Amino acid sequence: MVRVRCRECFMCIQSAPDDWACTFLTGIHEKPFARTRPIGRSLFGRMPATDLDQIVSLCKRRGFVYQSAEIYGGFRSTYDYGPLGSLLLRNVKEAWVRSMVQQRDDVVLIDAAILGPPQVWQASGHLANFSDPLVDCTNCKQRFREDKLDDPTTCPSCGAKDSFTPAREFNLMFKTQAGPVEGAGSDAYLRPETAQGMFTNFGQVLQTARKKPPFGIAQVGKSFRNEITPQNWIFRTREFEQMELEFFVPPSESADWYEYWCNARLQWYVDHGIPDDMLMLRPHDDDELSHYSAGTSDVEFKFPWGFDELEGIAQRTDFDLKAHSEASGERLDYFDPQTNERYVPYVIEPAAGATRTMAAFLLAAYDEDEINGETRVVLRLHPRLAPYKVAVLPLSKKDTLTPLAQKVRAMLADRYMVDYDETQNIGKRYRRQDEIGTPLAVTIDFDSLEDDAVTVRDRDTTEQVRVPISELLATVSGRLGF
Amino acid sequence: MVRVRCRECFMCIQSAPDDWACTFLTGIHEKPFARTRPIGRSLFGRMPATDLDQIVSLCKRRGFVYQSAEIYGGFRSTYDYGPLGSLLLRNVKEAWVRSMVQQRDDVVLIDAAILGPPQVWQASGHLANFSDPLVDCTNCKQRFREDKLDDPTTCPSCGAKDSFTPAREFNLMFKTQAGPVEGAGSDAYLRPETAQGMFTNFGQVLQTARKKPPFGIAQVGKSFRNEITPQNWIFRTREFEQMELEFFVPPSESADWYEYWCNARLQWYVDHGIPDDMLMLRPHDDDELSHYSAGTSDVEFKFPWGFDELEGIAQRTDFDLKAHSEASGERLDYFDPQTNERYVPYVIEPAAGATRTMAAFLLAAYDEDEINGETRVVLRLHPRLAPYKVAVLPLSKKDTLTPLAQKVRAMLADRYMVDYDETQNIGKRYRRQDEIGTPLAVTIDFDSLEDDAVTVRDRDTTEQVRVPISELLATVSGRLGF
Repeated sequence: MVRVRCRECFMCIQSAPDDWACTFLTGIHEKPFARTRPIGRSLFGRMPATDLDQIVSLCKRRGFVYQSAEIYGGFRSTYDYGPLGSLLLRNVKEAWVRSMVQQRDDVVLIDAAILGPPQVWQASGHLANFSDPLVDCTNCKQRFREDKLDDPTTCPSCGAKDSFTPAREFNLMFKTQAGPVEGAGSDAYLRPETAQGMFTNFGQVLQTARKKPPFGIAQVGKSFRNEITPQNWIFRTREFEQMELEFFVPPSESADWYEYWCNARLQWYVDHGIPDDMLMLRPHDDDELSHYSAGTSDVEFKFPWGFDELEGIAQRTDFDLKAHSEASGERLDYFDPQTNERYVPYVIEPAAGATRTMAAFLLAAYDEDEINGETRVVLRLHPRLAPYKVAVLPLSKKDTLTPLAQKVRAMLADRYMVDYDETQNIGKRYRRQDEIGTPLAVTIDFDSLEDDAVTVRDRDTTEQVRVPISELLATVSGRLGF
Repeated sequence: MVRVRCRECFMCIQSAPDDWACTFLTGIHEKPFARTRPIGRSLFGRMPATDLDQIVSLCKRRGFVYQSAEIYGGFRSTYDYGPLGSLLLRNVKEAWVRSMVQQRDDVVLIDAAILGPPQVWQASGHLANFSDPLVDCTNCKQRFREDKLDDPTTCPSCGAKDSFTPAREFNLMFKTQAGPVEGAGSDAYLRPETAQGMFTNFGQVLQTARKKPPFGIAQVGKSFRNEITPQNWIFRTREFEQMELEFFVPPSESADWYEYWCNARLQWYVDHGIPDDMLMLRPHDDDELSHYSAGTSDVEFKFPWGFDELEGIAQRTDFDLKAHSEASGERLDYFDPQTNERYVPYVIEPAAGATRTMAAFLLAAYDEDEINGETRVVLRLHPRLAPYKVAVLPLSKKDTLTPLAQKVRAMLADRYMVDYDETQNIGKRYRRQDEIGTPLAVTIDFDSLEDDAVTVRDRDTTEQVRVPISELLATVSGRLGF
């Protein structure tokens, strides 16, 4: 039995058996996902960012995200992550590894190379198929994606009619040359996805990691796609970061594991603070499916421009292992000593984008409320995601407080990322920490010198409590939950 | 006063003032580094790997490091990190970030893009100068690095005399094209070092992070160099990972901070378990120095092929900020409101290689000893670096133990990377955990079902103690130190 909400009517919630079908409005699901939208905290009373600019400007102002090479006019669609953004992005990836690898005993991590030889991308199909159709305007020489043109007979730049060349396929992989000799023999590609590293290493992992299906290989790392139309800030960029799992299962268990991972992945976003009203699981229509896919669903987030993909969960069947096995001549299968059967495992692939997920966490965490008649901006980030866990704030810059404040900082910094700020009045400093999502602030005042106690302030409630320094670490740990 | 040992004689150790000079054998240092070799655990009684193959084969057998794309015959000089290696590499980087960012209040982290436009590398000097001289043999068509030829008149491949073309400079940066239009306008480079990201973002970090010199910007990430002669396993590879700090200081404090960072960085390796006998700090000779450098020292590790670089600590003066400021027209300096002075900070750069540091930790941790008359291999990795912190081992595979063993695993896995292994006899499983460096093993036996207690075994001493499950987390945390 699970608690379910229908994806079609967005209304009915009930405890339901696995073969539940929504009957409230549509009743159209014969066998919907057990949980089509997760049950979690709702948006009630919150004001997530509805305009991308709210977050983009906060991120620029406070040092989450900078345009890359900005002093040279920027490098289009490429971003650098500043002091707060680099911590937030680390925490997103760390939270994923914790859930997907650390807390499970059926998934191992790998870290494969970004550069790879053509054979890998030949076998995976990327060399032949990973492309967009491009046309050139013979009048103004501009280049466009044919499938994105509003009117395929008119150039959107110069307005010329019927000026386009025939479309040619433009491969989205970045190509370079490795080794001292140029030429085809030294071609190398930047991976457009991390997934192939799990397939090419399948045999070595199986041999060395003592796992058997069902088991998974996970990876977090950068991928590169020469997108023609990068867009929406860090949502679609040429250089991006992925968090991918390839979960290898006996073919007969594939459908059940697909359902399992659809639910588990949707729930992960809820568990890390995205209100359930902003999430949905959208099964691909038949015409969206890759030819080898037996089913794909996207976890979608309500971005300011509409629901859009955070993650795809795909049933890839045995397509990838078979393709690499055929191309390399190496056996990529599993021999089950208990049944004496040899088979090529099927694969369920939950593949998430770390950078766009970071954007979603920021948008969902954004809130405005009123404190003492003043509007404040607060990022209600999950404590595991927040760049800093604690801010240490001596009430005054006076030297008398500094030694104790630094002692407290050092004690907390042994375990947590801590911000230390001694400028401006304490109210402004609280607002600054609220705006970057720091869950707790510790204030050292002149009484602290006498009573060896400090004030701990909660970001969400603004509630303050006095805590002896000897109990501070336990208090902080208890409130953060880790 | 510091405890010092002389780099020249390797003998004298004493408490000494800052202007200490070694007098035991050589007495040649007028003003040596305060601590020329760190004081730490010595090699006494240990047998670190003296042959690279000892580690390479252990790493392949146990799943630390695989050759990349091995099913396709491998991709030369490129490696993938397997289940254990990816965790170890993560831990090396995490330990660096903890020491260099988390525990300090004067360093912030960033995460800049790998792809960058030519302007950055024009200004940094990499487009003009980051190259090796290559010659072609006109007889056999092979290509060589001129400065690495034993005899510049004889081809080492075919033996031809005077068959070489004049040398031409071969740039070591990987080049690719970004955007839909090919041609010079879309050239992009894969960064050959992470450092330039800190310089190009200097102004934005200064504005948003509320820091002032002396302060640092740190970064961990991949860099790429099209090395002509990659070698020594993961020591020199085309794709590698760096851990770099750019520490910006008032020019007058540059020499002191240089000495500070030389000592601090050397000590970091000792603190994370490398015996001090295997480390030294080697100041560059004048003819090794870059033209802008006011001094560089390498932290060197005793690799099987001799002492070789783990990290360089360089005084880069104001070279980089000035170069980018001139090329971009943007001001990259600091205005000190207290002195009303504007200046371009000087930079101290401790730049370490994460992957080669991982190799050094493995080589230094390798040990063989005798347990009950049997030789065992044990990786004496620092607990923070060990891939798994704890192994959970039910004494028997019998179903009766599994629920409790899994409960213990889940409890520990909430906080630590845990291995779970229920195959083979317990002695073999202990050896396996010793060989991959797991500091603690927790055994669940049939008594555990009665007394709610488990046995905790120490990797280094093989000592075993019985601990109530209710106290297990505290015991593990106490023994690991975190």
